[in-house]
Amino acid sequence: MMSAKTLTEKILSRASGKDVSPGDVIEAKVDLVAFHDLTGYHVIEVMEKANMIKVFDKSKLVIAFDHLAPPPDVRSAEIQGYIRKFVKSEGIPNFYDINYGILHEVMIEQYANPGQVILAADSHTTTSGAVGAFAQGMGASDIAAALITGKTWLVVPQPFKVVLEGKPAKWITGKDVALKLLGDFKADYFNGMTLEIFVKDPLSFPMDYRATVSNMGIEMNADALMFIPDQETKRYIKEMRGYEPELVTPDNGAKYVDEYTIQLDEMEPLVAAPHSVDNVKVVNELEGTPVDQVYIGSCTNGRLSDFEIAAKIMKGKKVKSRCIAIPASYRMFKEALERGYIQTLVDAGCIVTYGTCGPCLGGHFGIAGPGENIVSTSSRNFKGRMGSNEAKVYLSGPAVAAISALEGKITDPRVI
Amino acid sequence: MMSAKTLTEKILSRASGKDVSPGDVIEAKVDLVAFHDLTGYHVIEVMEKANMIKVFDKSKLVIAFDHLAPPPDVRSAEIQGYIRKFVKSEGIPNFYDINYGILHEVMIEQYANPGQVILAADSHTTTSGAVGAFAQGMGASDIAAALITGKTWLVVPQPFKVVLEGKPAKWITGKDVALKLLGDFKADYFNGMTLEIFVKDPLSFPMDYRATVSNMGIEMNADALMFIPDQETKRYIKEMRGYEPELVTPDNGAKYVDEYTIQLDEMEPLVAAPHSVDNVKVVNELEGTPVDQVYIGSCTNGRLSDFEIAAKIMKGKKVKSRCIAIPASYRMFKEALERGYIQTLVDAGCIVTYGTCGPCLGGHFGIAGPGENIVSTSSRNFKGRMGSNEAKVYLSGPAVAAISALEGKITDPRVI
Repeated sequence: MMSAKTLTEKILSRASGKDVSPGDVIEAKVDLVAFHDLTGYHVIEVMEKANMIKVFDKSKLVIAFDHLAPPPDVRSAEIQGYIRKFVKSEGIPNFYDINYGILHEVMIEQYANPGQVILAADSHTTTSGAVGAFAQGMGASDIAAALITGKTWLVVPQPFKVVLEGKPAKWITGKDVALKLLGDFKADYFNGMTLEIFVKDPLSFPMDYRATVSNMGIEMNADALMFIPDQETKRYIKEMRGYEPELVTPDNGAKYVDEYTIQLDEMEPLVAAPHSVDNVKVVNELEGTPVDQVYIGSCTNGRLSDFEIAAKIMKGKKVKSRCIAIPASYRMFKEALERGYIQTLVDAGCIVTYGTCGPCLGGHFGIAGPGENIVSTSSRNFKGRMGSNEAKVYLSGPAVAAISALEGKITDPRVI
Repeated sequence: MMSAKTLTEKILSRASGKDVSPGDVIEAKVDLVAFHDLTGYHVIEVMEKANMIKVFDKSKLVIAFDHLAPPPDVRSAEIQGYIRKFVKSEGIPNFYDINYGILHEVMIEQYANPGQVILAADSHTTTSGAVGAFAQGMGASDIAAALITGKTWLVVPQPFKVVLEGKPAKWITGKDVALKLLGDFKADYFNGMTLEIFVKDPLSFPMDYRATVSNMGIEMNADALMFIPDQETKRYIKEMRGYEPELVTPDNGAKYVDEYTIQLDEMEPLVAAPHSVDNVKVVNELEGTPVDQVYIGSCTNGRLSDFEIAAKIMKGKKVKSRCIAIPASYRMFKEALERGYIQTLVDAGCIVTYGTCGPCLGGHFGIAGPGENIVSTSSRNFKGRMGSNEAKVYLSGPAVAAISALEGKITDPRVI
């Protein structure tokens, strides 16, 4: 008799064709492989050096330009040109040039499905865990190998169970849940583990929120952070792609290394203060900190609900800090435009564009200067991440970011 | 008895308090001084080194961040921080941070008036000639001196008369007139001269078109390129600022070094081919040239009428080339948004933002890669201007740019 399986074990058993347990070293089939402009260059380079320009299944490769898109320098333009040539010569169908979106957003909007194994050459690949995929970032050589063979090797991680209970308190979104896990467990705790998150009331914690939490799974050092697929997963994929996915779920009685419950209705808005993602504080501990620039966007918080919240807060007001607002994809921008959110943000004085990582990684479009305080909805705040080593980055959800932009200082959104 | 005066002589006589003629070396009072992020840094540095941080009249200084805004690297962020400190310590009222617009656009929207002398630390300062100001770009040291003293020295240029007759043929705008002058006279011809342009039917050649021609006055090597103020000048300033300007016009019988007439109704869409602004061809001579990227924007062609034309052409269609569309200011973006042009361009697959020079000067947000062909509505196409030395830049108006983006190759808009 087979034992009851966690989602992690189920996915990796299917992918390896074996009945796996945590600690097993396995060879797993991959369902999707992906890269962006900055890492794609290295992936192709590895394949070229190995004299193995050969993709196991072209329909399973997704490429999106996002890190330095549109290119801020000649080198970025050159790299993109190099990848375009690969796309053309190999006939890669799933290619998104500079006018589409951030890779991880493209993946959850269009490709990722429950139960898949997804590898991409970027650490925030964990984002696709939002729909219940085992999604992990890897380096260029591993991705090149997976692209050629359609397989990868893995150590089956220890699954850790998280339960979300209740409805989120006012202004609480996925970012607060991610920051709570980081604050409570610290950034190293989940090394060698996966997180499997059970949402008690599926519709109370929508896909946008889940994507933020999964995205930051890598900040927790987790191998993957998966939401157990449920009716919200179905709703999201149906809405985005027009079909209902098959749900893969853990068995009743599956064994977890540990379990942790978060009461959403008791949560407070959180901020990760400089210079670590796990230096987490309740927003009012930081209230009044002057803010030079706010960034709303990135693969962490560049979705419709983020701009809905920002627009709600900024409606009819003007920003005191500089504010850069970048929906993560063409689709998110278009929907935000149709719903009037972009107009509201522009009226408030925000600079907008779409589909680029922008300042998140210190790439371009709003680099942090020396001595500046930045409030950012992105994923990382270590020294120098968004530009100058002398800048301080505070990570928050969209509500704290929007109200702080209006006030020119870190502000608790619960005043509204 | 005073002789009949050209607009150039009238403006410079008032500014110098003397009855001036071409060739005179004069000291002139300046009405407005301006700089942007990239040059402002040097202007302030010169003032600091001279130990003369002193602005003759704070209300007459205009500062706008545009060249590297939002900053694509730490150095740009640092420079902007440095200028912000100057703005704060000196209490400069007319300051436009990264969320406003390109300096020259800010100047004509809000500050420039007929008959003024305007100096700014950027060559395209000539743009304000569109409203009949004597506007000239100067280097950082000259601008610093003008800022401290409120004066500058000049050699009174030789005025050259241009007459625009008739209504522009279909798809003909200011860019075609600028390119016609460049093609017919070549880039050096107007050295030491001003151009004074008389529009026979003022409303047929609106301010947006005039701004493009004045902007490219510096490409013609003219000291200034001024449109004779008329009812269109009044209409524009009234619409933008709510007041009617006093018109300064040349006297009847004023003497010009030469005169040239352009029949607008007989014009054809023009393109400046690589690598010179005066390598001008009728668009159909270049038809079929493959286009990798199109840029619609810049201080040359980033105004409402440019996006109106682009939207008209792109409505309901999809681009084949990458297309970057950047209204020159917050105001232009907002109006384009209200009129649905931004939606149309985004639907067509364009990337949008606002208020930055972007790729025009090879700054950021769409740098040209090696081997790429670019169609750009900006002002310069010399080797390396927009990025790689191995890129080719074709300069055109918005109609050629928009249709070429749709077709993926240089296309004559008259097919529409």
